[in-house]
Amino acid sequence: MDTPLIAGREWLIEATGCSASALRDPETLKSVFDSIIEDLGLKTIGAPIWHKFPGEGGVTGLVALTESHLACHTYPEHNLATFNLYCCKDRPEWDWKDKLASRIGASDVNVTRVSRGIESKPEAHCDENELEFQMTVAGGDA
Amino acid sequence: MDTPLIAGREWLIEATGCSASALRDPETLKSVFDSIIEDLGLKTIGAPIWHKFPGEGGVTGLVALTESHLACHTYPEHNLATFNLYCCKDRPEWDWKDKLASRIGASDVNVTRVSRGIESKPEAHCDENELEFQMTVAGGDA
Repeated sequence: MDTPLIAGREWLIEATGCSASALRDPETLKSVFDSIIEDLGLKTIGAPIWHKFPGEGGVTGLVALTESHLACHTYPEHNLATFNLYCCKDRPEWDWKDKLASRIGASDVNVTRVSRGIESKPEAHCDENELEFQMTVAGGDA
Repeated sequence: MDTPLIAGREWLIEATGCSASALRDPETLKSVFDSIIEDLGLKTIGAPIWHKFPGEGGVTGLVALTESHLACHTYPEHNLATFNLYCCKDRPEWDWKDKLASRIGASDVNVTRVSRGIESKPEAHCDENELEFQMTVAGGDA
């Protein structure tokens, strides 16, 4: 077995019990992105993509980073927001639970860490509120 | 237990053994995105983000979809590409293995499906080449 090849880490976030009005407000979600980017020392590439779906619909946000990308999708009808943060460089944990509680009213936040592009056996570590899941790559170096 | 709340499905793809030159070519990767979008009947929102890192560096691509988003990051130095396809609406499987073999020379492709925003107990189904992982959300409807 070669040394694990880790191309990056991705955090998959499910935030429930959120304020529906916050989930329909692109400015609120942009400010969440700004905090994540500032707190973790990330660098954006080009202009982000922000889209508000019509009427009672939610918001999609996508930002390319020199460290990979940040995305969110909101579902006001379910008081749900999901986030993806993919970093190809090591970064500390962001305090998703407290920050999303204060910024978008999340009552519960589930964080899953995924290691991308590694060579190792599949492994999943689960506890009550946080799951770690390592993806496997069986291939070689062509 | 309430009925599971499924906000979408995400496919996380690791493709190894790829052609380094394909992984440095935005046009090749754009054509892969075009095929995914066309084959699965997806609709793009606004302009995609494409970034080629300098010199021997890889490519980042991000496209917002009415169904959520599609992303790729390539690592030519490791002959590795990763993709994320997040769909908030049900879509068939794309043939990642054969398509990425023919388009970017991938010798091995690992596909992980993740259900986003569901209310249920954690569950992971693993087999040799394909992993399914359901994320859990413990929160309620505030």
